[in-house]
Amino acid sequence: MPKHILVLHGPNLNMLGKREPQIYGKLSLRDINTALEKKACAAGFSLSTFQSNHEGALVDRVQEALGQIHGIIINPAAFTHTSVAIRDALLLHDLPLIEVHISNIHKREAFRSQSYISDIATGQIVGLGIRGYLLALDAMMAILTDKEDLM
Amino acid sequence: MPKHILVLHGPNLNMLGKREPQIYGKLSLRDINTALEKKACAAGFSLSTFQSNHEGALVDRVQEALGQIHGIIINPAAFTHTSVAIRDALLLHDLPLIEVHISNIHKREAFRSQSYISDIATGQIVGLGIRGYLLALDAMMAILTDKEDLM
Amino acid sequence: MPKHILVLHGPNLNMLGKREPQIYGKLSLRDINTALEKKACAAGFSLSTFQSNHEGALVDRVQEALGQIHGIIINPAAFTHTSVAIRDALLLHDLPLIEVHISNIHKREAFRSQSYISDIATGQIVGLGIRGYLLALDAMMAILTDKEDLM
Amino acid sequence: MPKHILVLHGPNLNMLGKREPQIYGKLSLRDINTALEKKACAAGFSLSTFQSNHEGALVDRVQEALGQIHGIIINPAAFTHTSVAIRDALLLHDLPLIEVHISNIHKREAFRSQSYISDIATGQIVGLGIRGYLLALDAMMAILTDKEDLM
Amino acid sequence: MPKHILVLHGPNLNMLGKREPQIYGKLSLRDINTALEKKACAAGFSLSTFQSNHEGALVDRVQEALGQIHGIIINPAAFTHTSVAIRDALLLHDLPLIEVHISNIHKREAFRSQSYISDIATGQIVGLGIRGYLLALDAMMAILTDKEDLM
Amino acid sequence: MPKHILVLHGPNLNMLGKREPQIYGKLSLRDINTALEKKACAAGFSLSTFQSNHEGALVDRVQEALGQIHGIIINPAAFTHTSVAIRDALLLHDLPLIEVHISNIHKREAFRSQSYISDIATGQIVGLGIRGYLLALDAMMAILTDKEDLM
Amino acid sequence: MPKHILVLHGPNLNMLGKREPQIYGKLSLRDINTALEKKACAAGFSLSTFQSNHEGALVDRVQEALGQIHGIIINPAAFTHTSVAIRDALLLHDLPLIEVHISNIHKREAFRSQSYISDIATGQIVGLGIRGYLLALDAMMAILTDKEDLM
Amino acid sequence: MPKHILVLHGPNLNMLGKREPQIYGKLSLRDINTALEKKACAAGFSLSTFQSNHEGALVDRVQEALGQIHGIIINPAAFTHTSVAIRDALLLHDLPLIEVHISNIHKREAFRSQSYISDIATGQIVGLGIRGYLLALDAMMAILTDKEDLM
Amino acid sequence: MPKHILVLHGPNLNMLGKREPQIYGKLSLRDINTALEKKACAAGFSLSTFQSNHEGALVDRVQEALGQIHGIIINPAAFTHTSVAIRDALLLHDLPLIEVHISNIHKREAFRSQSYISDIATGQIVGLGIRGYLLALDAMMAILTDKEDLM
Amino acid sequence: MPKHILVLHGPNLNMLGKREPQIYGKLSLRDINTALEKKACAAGFSLSTFQSNHEGALVDRVQEALGQIHGIIINPAAFTHTSVAIRDALLLHDLPLIEVHISNIHKREAFRSQSYISDIATGQIVGLGIRGYLLALDAMMAILTDKEDLM
Amino acid sequence: MPKHILVLHGPNLNMLGKREPQIYGKLSLRDINTALEKKACAAGFSLSTFQSNHEGALVDRVQEALGQIHGIIINPAAFTHTSVAIRDALLLHDLPLIEVHISNIHKREAFRSQSYISDIATGQIVGLGIRGYLLALDAMMAILTDKEDLM
Amino acid sequence: MPKHILVLHGPNLNMLGKREPQIYGKLSLRDINTALEKKACAAGFSLSTFQSNHEGALVDRVQEALGQIHGIIINPAAFTHTSVAIRDALLLHDLPLIEVHISNIHKREAFRSQSYISDIATGQIVGLGIRGYLLALDAMMAILTDKEDLM
Repeated sequence: MPKHILVLHGPNLNMLGKREPQIYGKLSLRDINTALEKKACAAGFSLSTFQSNHEGALVDRVQEALGQIHGIIINPAAFTHTSVAIRDALLLHDLPLIEVHISNIHKREAFRSQSYISDIATGQIVGLGIRGYLLALDAMMAILTDKEDLM
Repeated sequence: MPKHILVLHGPNLNMLGKREPQIYGKLSLRDINTALEKKACAAGFSLSTFQSNHEGALVDRVQEALGQIHGIIINPAAFTHTSVAIRDALLLHDLPLIEVHISNIHKREAFRSQSYISDIATGQIVGLGIRGYLLALDAMMAILTDKEDLM
Repeated sequence: MPKHILVLHGPNLNMLGKREPQIYGKLSLRDINTALEKKACAAGFSLSTFQSNHEGALVDRVQEALGQIHGIIINPAAFTHTSVAIRDALLLHDLPLIEVHISNIHKREAFRSQSYISDIATGQIVGLGIRGYLLALDAMMAILTDKEDLM
Repeated sequence: MPKHILVLHGPNLNMLGKREPQIYGKLSLRDINTALEKKACAAGFSLSTFQSNHEGALVDRVQEALGQIHGIIINPAAFTHTSVAIRDALLLHDLPLIEVHISNIHKREAFRSQSYISDIATGQIVGLGIRGYLLALDAMMAILTDKEDLM
Repeated sequence: MPKHILVLHGPNLNMLGKREPQIYGKLSLRDINTALEKKACAAGFSLSTFQSNHEGALVDRVQEALGQIHGIIINPAAFTHTSVAIRDALLLHDLPLIEVHISNIHKREAFRSQSYISDIATGQIVGLGIRGYLLALDAMMAILTDKEDLM
Repeated sequence: MPKHILVLHGPNLNMLGKREPQIYGKLSLRDINTALEKKACAAGFSLSTFQSNHEGALVDRVQEALGQIHGIIINPAAFTHTSVAIRDALLLHDLPLIEVHISNIHKREAFRSQSYISDIATGQIVGLGIRGYLLALDAMMAILTDKEDLM
Repeated sequence: MPKHILVLHGPNLNMLGKREPQIYGKLSLRDINTALEKKACAAGFSLSTFQSNHEGALVDRVQEALGQIHGIIINPAAFTHTSVAIRDALLLHDLPLIEVHISNIHKREAFRSQSYISDIATGQIVGLGIRGYLLALDAMMAILTDKEDLM
Repeated sequence: MPKHILVLHGPNLNMLGKREPQIYGKLSLRDINTALEKKACAAGFSLSTFQSNHEGALVDRVQEALGQIHGIIINPAAFTHTSVAIRDALLLHDLPLIEVHISNIHKREAFRSQSYISDIATGQIVGLGIRGYLLALDAMMAILTDKEDLM
Repeated sequence: MPKHILVLHGPNLNMLGKREPQIYGKLSLRDINTALEKKACAAGFSLSTFQSNHEGALVDRVQEALGQIHGIIINPAAFTHTSVAIRDALLLHDLPLIEVHISNIHKREAFRSQSYISDIATGQIVGLGIRGYLLALDAMMAILTDKEDLM
Repeated sequence: MPKHILVLHGPNLNMLGKREPQIYGKLSLRDINTALEKKACAAGFSLSTFQSNHEGALVDRVQEALGQIHGIIINPAAFTHTSVAIRDALLLHDLPLIEVHISNIHKREAFRSQSYISDIATGQIVGLGIRGYLLALDAMMAILTDKEDLM
Repeated sequence: MPKHILVLHGPNLNMLGKREPQIYGKLSLRDINTALEKKACAAGFSLSTFQSNHEGALVDRVQEALGQIHGIIINPAAFTHTSVAIRDALLLHDLPLIEVHISNIHKREAFRSQSYISDIATGQIVGLGIRGYLLALDAMMAILTDKEDLM
Repeated sequence: MPKHILVLHGPNLNMLGKREPQIYGKLSLRDINTALEKKACAAGFSLSTFQSNHEGALVDRVQEALGQIHGIIINPAAFTHTSVAIRDALLLHDLPLIEVHISNIHKREAFRSQSYISDIATGQIVGLGIRGYLLALDAMMAILTDKEDLM
C-alpha cells in the first residue's frame, strides 16, 4: 500500500488565484492540489489535501489522520503566528513535517517572523511561490523513501 | 550562452561529511558541488561554487560576480547571523537569491533565528538536509526560465 | 443599485444587552443591526450584518463578500488582538474599512492595545458606546459618496 | 435542585489516553468525564462536560451556560495562550472558575507561561496529572457549599 | 444657558489646508472651526475653539476652562505622544473627553501609537479625516444630552 | 515505616489568621499544620511542618531532610520570586514537589508571576485558599502510593 | 547678603488647592510660596518662586538665575518625565538641587517613575504632600549652611 | 500614651560612619538612632530602632510590631531591590510608611532604581544624607498628629 | 535673489560661551550666527537665525518660513529627544535639512541617542564642536547649488 | 605577620560531595577548605573560611573582616543572582576579590548569567570544578605578593 | 614633517560609483581618495587611504599605523554594526577620530542605528554623500592645527 | 607522544605589551606564548599558539587542528561577542575548552557581557591578567591527566 501524505492549507489559501496573483500566483488551490496529487501518484505515493479557514477544523483533520499517514506538508498561513492548538495537534504525530509559505514572510510585517510551527517542523520552504509545495513534496517523498540526500 | 548560477557556502561548510553526519549528512562539500554542477549542466545552465571561512572573501566573490551571473544560492552558515557586509554585497545585485540552511535553525540556539539575509532573499529552504541545495537549484532554474509555477 | 456595506461583529457581541449594560449599553445586537439597516436604507445604501464567535466563520463571511460590497465596518472584539486570519481576509478587499470598539480599549488590559486590524483599517471609532456603530456608518456613507469632509 | 458545574476541555484533550500516556496519563477523556460526574453526583451536585477543538464552540458553550451553572472548571489547553474570546466569554459569568493543566506548563515552552485565563480565574491546579480535575472538583464543591477551608 | 464644548487643536494643525491636502484634506482650520460652531449652535450648544503650537498655552487654556465647559474635544497632534502636562490639565476636569486624529496614527511611525491621552479619554475617532471632528461633536452632544445610544 | 512528607511555609505565613482573613482565611498556621498532620496520619503517612521568615533557615531545613523524606509541599510565599538558594536546596532532592499559593498570584503584582520554583516543581495549586494545602496533600499521597490518576 | 533659594513649580501646580484636595492638599500655591518665603526669611535666607505651565518659561527662568542663586528646589510635575530642556538648564548650574513631588509618583502610572531630573538632583522628597516643600527647604538651608547632618 | 514610631535599618547600615564618610556621613548608626529618639521624645512620641543584615530578622521585627506602633520609617538599603518578604511584612500593617535612602539611588547602578517598597510607601526621602532620617521623622510626626500641611 | 537658509537653535544654546566652554567652546551664539551669516553672504546666500527655549516658538518659526527658505540647519538640542511637534513642523517643508550637534551625543546619556529628527533629516554633523555649524553650512550651500559631490 | 585571605562559600555549598558528584566533584567542603588552608600556609599566607546558607550571616562575616584581611575569594552560589546586600558588604572593602563558580553558570538557566558580584570583582574563575578554588588562591597570592604576571 | 591622516573605508565601498549612484554618488573610491589626498596636501598634510572587505585587514592596517598618524577618518560601512575588533583596534590609538557615513543610516534598517564606533569617535558626519569625506577632512585638519572653532 | 594543547588569541592581542600596560600587563604576546610552551613542556605536554586579527584565519586554524589536539585555550577577545563562525568551528571538536579574558569584561561596556563562546566552553578565567593564561593551562593539564580536583 502506498505511503500517504497529508497536505494542509490554512486560512485564506482557498482564495489563491483569485486575489493578488502577483504575490501568490494565478493558479487556484484546486490546481495546486491536483498537481500535488498527480506528482505523488506518479511516484507511488498517495496524497490527500485539506483546507480550512477554521483552526478547529484543521485540528480535527490532523487528529483524524493519526495512524493513517506518513508525512505532513502544511502551509499554516495566518495560523503560523497564532495557533498553539495546531502545534499541539501536529505534536501528536511523530512524522516528517514540512512547512511551506508561498511568500517570503521575512519581508512582511514583523509578527510574521514569529511561528508556532517552525521549531517542530523538519524544515521550511519559504518565499518560492506555489512551486514551494512541489519542492516540499519532492523533499517529503525523498525522506519517506530514505533516499540518499543527493539522489 | 547558458545562464550562470553562483552557489556560495559560508564558514565551516568545508567540513561537511567530516563531522556530525547525523546532522549534516555524510556527503562532502565536493560531492554537493559536483551534484549541483551536473544537475545545472544537464538543464542547460552553468554553475560555479565558492566556499570560505572568511567573510571578506565571500564579499570579494560576490562583488566579482557583478554582471556575470543570473542567480545566487547561498548557505551563509554562521554569517547569517553576523554579517552585514555580505548582506550589503548581495544587495549590489538585483537577482533571484535563495538562502539554504541544512539543519532547521529554528530548533537551535535562539540567536540562529535572527538573520541579516532572510529579508533580502527571494526565499529560504531550511532543515531539509543537503537535499535543500538541490531543491534550491530546482527553484532557481525554474525562476530563471520563467517556468509556470506548477511546471 | 445601492452600494452595500457589510457590518461584522466579533465574539461575544451577540451577548450585548444581556450582560454589563453599564459598559456595553442595554441594547441588543439585534437592536443595533436594525438601527444600522434603517439608517443605511434611509440614505440609499444597503447593509447586511454578521456575528460569530468563530474566527473561521468570520473569515468565510469576509471571503464570500468579495466583489459584493463597497465598505466594511467591523468590531472584531477579542479577535482584534489574536486573529491574523481575519486580517488576511480583510486584506483581500481593497475597500474602506472602519474598526469600531464599544468600550475604550486603552483603559483596559494592556493586551487590548495591540491590534492586528488598526494598521490596515481606514480609521477607528473607540469608546463611544454602541453609538460608535452609527458614527462609523455615517463616516462610511460619506466616504462612499465622496462627500466633502465637512458636509 | 443540585448546583451545576460545567467542565470545559480545550483542543486536543479529546486525544487523552491515545497519545503520550507518560505525560498525560492513559485514561481517556470519557474516563475522566465519567469519574467527575460520579464524584459530583455522589456529593449532591450535577455536572456536565464539553470538549472542542474549536474556540468558537467553547465560546458558544460558555454563553449558553449563562444563568444555568454555579461554577466552571476549565482546562483551556492551547487556548490558554491564544484565546481572548474565551476569556471574554468567561467574564460574562461571575462565578467560581478553576483552571486545570495536566502537565506543568512552567516546565515547557516559554509561551506556555503566558495565559489569558489565569488572572480571571479563582485559582489553578497545574502539573498534577488528570488527578488535577478531581482536585479541582473537590475545591469547586467546597467553594459552592461554603465549606470552611479545612473541612 | 447652552452647554459649552471646548475644541482644542494641537501643534501644526493651524497649517491644515496649506500642506499635504491628500492626507489632511484641503479645508483650513478656520473652515473646520466654523463648521463645528454652526453645527453645535444649530443643536443648541455653544462651542469655542483654540489652537496652539505651545504646549503651555494649551495647558493654560484647559485650566481657564475649569467650571466653564461641559465637554472637551481634542486633537492633541504631536502632543499626543509627548505631553504629560496636557494630560494632567485634562485630568483636572471630570468631563467627557473625545480624542480626534485626522490620519490613522496606527499606519504611521511606531511612536505615534503611544499616547498620553487615550487612556484618560472617553473615546477616540481616528483616521476619518477632518470629518472626524464632526463625528466627535455628534458623539459629544449626544453624551451631553443623555441621548439613548441609538438615537 | 510510614512515608514522610515535609511541608514548608515561607515568610509571613506565620501571620495567617491574624491579618487580612478575607484574603488568606481566618485559620492560623497552627490550624493548618494540625489539619495536615491529622489527614496524613489517617492515611498512613507521617508529616512534619516548618515555617520561617529566614531564607537560610528554610535552606537549612531542606538540607537536613535529605534522605529523610518522600515528598515536599512548599508555599514559598515571597521567596517564590527571590530565592535561588531555596531552589538550589530543593534541587538536591529528587522527590515529588508541590508548590502551593493561597491567593491567586496571577491577579496580583506582575512580579509575583515570576517564580524560581515553578519549573522545578511537579505541580502547583494556586488561589484556592488554605484548602490548597489539603488538596496538595491529597495529590502528594496519591503520587507516593502510585495511585491511578482517577482513584 | 542672604543666600538665595529658587523654588520652581512645573505645570498645573498653579491649580493646587483648586482640584483634588484629597491628593494634593487644600492649600493654594500662593499659600505654599508664602510659607516658604517666611520660613526662609526667618532663617536668614531669601527665596523666590516661579511657576509656569510653559517648559520654555521654566528654562528661561533657570537661565536668568545663573550666578544669582545658591540652591534650587523644583517640583517639575509633568515635566519630570518629558523635559530634557529643563534638565539641561539645571545642568548649567552647579548647585544643590532638591526635587519635590507632592504625591507618591511610584503609586501612579508607570511612566511617572521615569525621570529626567532624579539623577542630576541632590535628592528627592516624594509623596509627603505639600509638606514636602518645607522639608526640602529645611534640607536646602542645612546644606547651604554646612550644618552637621544631625543638627 | 505616646504614639510609637518604628525605625528600621537594612543591611550594612550598621557600618555607617565606619566607611565612605564622604558618601554616607561620619556619624554612626548609634548617633542617628539617638538623635531620632531624642527628637521624637521631645515632641511627645516614642521611637524604637532596629537594624539587621538578615532579611528574616527584619521581617520578624516588622511582624512583632503589629498593633504596637503608629508609623514606620525604613531605610531598606540593599533589600529595597530584592526583598518581597519585607514588602509583604510591611503590607501586614496599614500605617504611614516613609522610605529613606541616604544617597541618591538614582545616581547609582541601574538596579538601584527598582524598588519593592516605593509603591507601598507613603513617600520617600532620597539623597539628603542622614539628615533624611530627621526629615522623615518630622514628616511622620506631622502625619501622626494630623497637622495641617504647612504647620 | 539669493537662496535663503534658516538656522535654528534649540533650548539652552543661547548660553553658549557662558558655561562649560571645554565642551561647547567659548564662542557665543551671536559669534556663531555672525560667522554663519558672513560665510553665507560671501557665497551669495542669505541666512537668518533663530533660537528659542520654547518648543512652540520654534514650531511657529518653522511654519512662518514655509515658502520663504531653501534649506534648514537645526541644532535641536534637548528637543531632539522630546519634540514630535518640531518634527511635524519640519515635515511641512520638503527641503534639505541638516541636523547639528556640538557634542557627541553618542558619548552621553543613553536617552540622547534617540532622536525624532535624524530619520527625517538629510544628514547629521555630530561632535565636531561649533565648527559643525560651518561644515553644515558648507554642505547646505553645496546641495543648494547642485555642486558635484567633490567640488 | 602573614597576609590573610578570607574564603566565603554561599548557600548549599556545605552539601558538596554529598549530592551530584558528577557536577560538583566528590570532595566535601571540608576537604576543599583544608586544601586551601594548607596551600596558603605553605606559601606563607593565612586563610580562613566561612560558609552559610544565610545571606545575613555572610554579610555579617564580611563586615567583621574589615581591616583584618587582604583578599577575598567568594563562591556566592545562589546569592550571586539575588544578593545586593553581599555586594554592598563586599564594597565596604577595597581589596582584591575573586569570584569562583564550580560549574559553568553560562550553560545553566538564563537567570544564572546575571550577577551582582561580577562587576565589582577583580576576576572570575568559572566552570573548572573545585579546582577553581585553588586556581583562585594561586591568583590571589600572586596578586598579594605583586608577582610579575608570568612568574 | 606634515601631520598624517589615515582614511579607512569598510566593506563594499570599493564598489562606489559602480552601483546605485542615486544613493552613493557616481564618483569612484579612487576619485574620492584622490580628492582627499589633494586637499590634504594643499593644506600641508599628508594622507593615506585603505579599503578592505576584510575586517581583519582593517584591524591590521589600524595596528600598523600606531605612532605613524595624527588622525583617523573612517567609514566603517557594514562593520559599523558588527565589528568589535575594529573598535578595539581604534581604541589602541588616542587620536581624533571622525566617522563618516555617505547615506543617512537613520533612514535605513533599524540595525544600522546601532554602532560600535560612534561612542568612541570624536564625531560623525552622516548622510551628506561623499562630500561628507571632505567635510570630515576639513574638520580633522582644523582639529590637528588647533584652529579656533570658527576659523 | 605528549598530549597537545592549542592556544588561540583573538584580534588585537598581538598588541599586548605595546599599549595600555596598566590594563593588559607589559608582557608581549611572544612572552606569554613562550611561558605557556615552557610550562606545558615541563609538564610533559606540547602546546602551540596562534593569533590572528582575521576571524576566518582562526576558523581555518581550528579546523586544521581536528584530530591533532587534546584541548583548546582561547582568548577570543573582540570575537567573543561577534563570531558565530568561531563558535561553530569550536563545536566541531569535542574537547575541553577554556575561555580566557585578561580584563574583567563585566566591568566594561555592556555588550562585552554577551558571549558566543561561554556556553560551549568548559569554563572561563576572567579578569586575572595574563596570569589567567597560566591558570588556564594549569586547569587544562589537570583535566587532561584526569587529576583529582584538589591535586
